[in-house]
Amino acid sequence: MNKENISKSVIKRLPRYYRFISELDEQGVDRVSSGQLAEIMRTTASQVRQDLNHFGGFGHQGYGYPVPKLKEEIKNILGLNKTHKAVLIGAGHIGTAIAAHMDFENMGFSLEGIFDTNKRIIGDKIRKVEIYEIEVLRDFCKAKGISAAFLCIPRESAPGVVKVLNEGGVNSFWNFTHYDINADYPDAIVENVHLSDMLMTLCYSMKELEG
Amino acid sequence: MNKENISKSVIKRLPRYYRFISELDEQGVDRVSSGQLAEIMRTTASQVRQDLNHFGGFGHQGYGYPVPKLKEEIKNILGLNKTHKAVLIGAGHIGTAIAAHMDFENMGFSLEGIFDTNKRIIGDKIRKVEIYEIEVLRDFCKAKGISAAFLCIPRESAPGVVKVLNEGGVNSFWNFTHYDINADYPDAIVENVHLSDMLMTLCYSMKELEG
Repeated sequence: MNKENISKSVIKRLPRYYRFISELDEQGVDRVSSGQLAEIMRTTASQVRQDLNHFGGFGHQGYGYPVPKLKEEIKNILGLNKTHKAVLIGAGHIGTAIAAHMDFENMGFSLEGIFDTNKRIIGDKIRKVEIYEIEVLRDFCKAKGISAAFLCIPRESAPGVVKVLNEGGVNSFWNFTHYDINADYPDAIVENVHLSDMLMTLCYSMKELEG
Repeated sequence: MNKENISKSVIKRLPRYYRFISELDEQGVDRVSSGQLAEIMRTTASQVRQDLNHFGGFGHQGYGYPVPKLKEEIKNILGLNKTHKAVLIGAGHIGTAIAAHMDFENMGFSLEGIFDTNKRIIGDKIRKVEIYEIEVLRDFCKAKGISAAFLCIPRESAPGVVKVLNEGGVNSFWNFTHYDINADYPDAIVENVHLSDMLMTLCYSMKELEG
């Protein structure tokens, strides 16, 4: 694997590859051809071969790719074999959904704590993870060595919370708010989830089809 | 506006333009320069000018763009001035968050009904929208002329629900499940939300920074 040569567009496709290959692995599939992968990924077999060549080129003409090995390789490239300690801020509907359903362990994260301002839910647990009061967030992050935060809070609360997280040593964010973290923290690693942008894109596609 | 000339990459940026320009409009800002927009959009002024030239080129050198007019123009291009009738399936945490917080009216949709299998919540309302039992979904969609569905259900339920929606005349989907709708319905309009892919991308970015 020569990661310098892996382009951004390949990286963008990696989670999808990983998701599909994990499914094949769970189904007990041993080998998969570039043609089969192309069909699942909605691309061409030559694109698949080109993409997977970046990861050591261990597919052999006529034999396909060994599923478990390919899965491990992509897992390593994505960094999912490490574990980053994370906190989730905001135990509202979105935050609770994320805390309750995301498969953090298989995605490189361990959720260490949930934080909220609602005193009535402090001490409750979501999937064994305790909800703490927001006032202890900075110290918690420092003490536990937290590196990532999942922001499921209203936009107006975001700047204050990110300031506290930053002081607590957190520099990576999965951001469900529209707060532009990089405007205030240019070095922060941010993955934004803009649900409204996605809904507008759907609207545009519907308009285009209707003509 | 000549929509034939608008490339896919411009279209992808449009929701962000719309979001930022709407904020400026709400703040009462009358005019915005390409340089200011470039800063908010994290791009170059020449890129902004090139993008916005697709929409009639009504910016004038030295004067900037008229905010309300630009907002209306992008709104029209995105099709947000029309209203598509939609249903939401699955009143769990994600579904409830979407139903409770999304600004559907300003994004080209009206949420007409919520559907769930949990009999205890049938008849409840989320922001004035009633929760119906899933058994009436097909007839409801036909009778109301529903064109879009927001899928907030477990993946294993998705194929069955999409089949019913399809029979009810629904062809556009905002899909929070990993079910690949286009594999079974190639003509469906689908906007997928793959939260796990985003989390893996965050993990990859963290790994890259750490070296």
